[in-house]
Amino acid sequence: MADDRHAPEIAEPVVELLDEAECLGLISAGGVGRIGYTGRFGPTVLPVNYALYEGTIVFRTGQDSPMGEDLRTGIAHAESKVAFEIDEISQATREGWSILVQGSAHPVDSEAERASVMRSGVEPWAGGEKELFIRIIPTCMTGRRIRRTEPPNGG
Amino acid sequence: MADDRHAPEIAEPVVELLDEAECLGLISAGGVGRIGYTGRFGPTVLPVNYALYEGTIVFRTGQDSPMGEDLRTGIAHAESKVAFEIDEISQATREGWSILVQGSAHPVDSEAERASVMRSGVEPWAGGEKELFIRIIPTCMTGRRIRRTEPPNGG
Repeated sequence: MADDRHAPEIAEPVVELLDEAECLGLISAGGVGRIGYTGRFGPTVLPVNYALYEGTIVFRTGQDSPMGEDLRTGIAHAESKVAFEIDEISQATREGWSILVQGSAHPVDSEAERASVMRSGVEPWAGGEKELFIRIIPTCMTGRRIRRTEPPNGG
Repeated sequence: MADDRHAPEIAEPVVELLDEAECLGLISAGGVGRIGYTGRFGPTVLPVNYALYEGTIVFRTGQDSPMGEDLRTGIAHAESKVAFEIDEISQATREGWSILVQGSAHPVDSEAERASVMRSGVEPWAGGEKELFIRIIPTCMTGRRIRRTEPPNGG
């Protein structure tokens, strides 16, 4: 790749850990994140459009989709452990940040809660009925940022 | 968000499934993907720089990093089941594609295999020693593309 010829000019990376407040600031605008869980067909990671709503991650999927079925455990009030990853990475500069939210995926079943999370305004991007709202209650949030310092010899 | 006011103008999405050859074509250039697995701290999804090499996904991590330790099962020749997701999604047009590779994560331990996968040229982006090469042997590869058709009434 052409980029490889320029690789030695890219400065050394500096990795900075982000605290929870910085993580929340970066993900508050919503957008695309990736949900990770172990489903019937093994470990799965899929992109979804999400919103941050009242400190939780909200997204939509189909009631009868494979993801919907995987994230419903079949047991009332039981929740699946999931990961949710959000990042913004520049392939050109090799800088960026990524955030990992770990928590429980809670299918929104009651009408009252559904009315509440609909206020998040989150919309699914793909076609089809996406009438199941999933809410991730974070138990752990970690993030890191990669910056490039100036190369010691000016590149 | 300002975008919401324009949402009704965005055309209906059409979801198209990608076959394995299309998936391989889209990921052959390498770049950033997200590895998903269940580690000691629960489900985890993290971005890594990867290369497609001889039909496998290759990336690097630290020998003693949490990911390195999670993906080594501690049992010789035992492998972890993982997911690897690659996507290219435009927040502006709400179009894009995503690919999910499921398979086994194989830590590269022999000198011969290490010499081979080093030819992939894959480099880690973050700082620190990333001397452990992980190779994902795909068992399943699925992909989809979302396109927007013209709105029926011209938006």
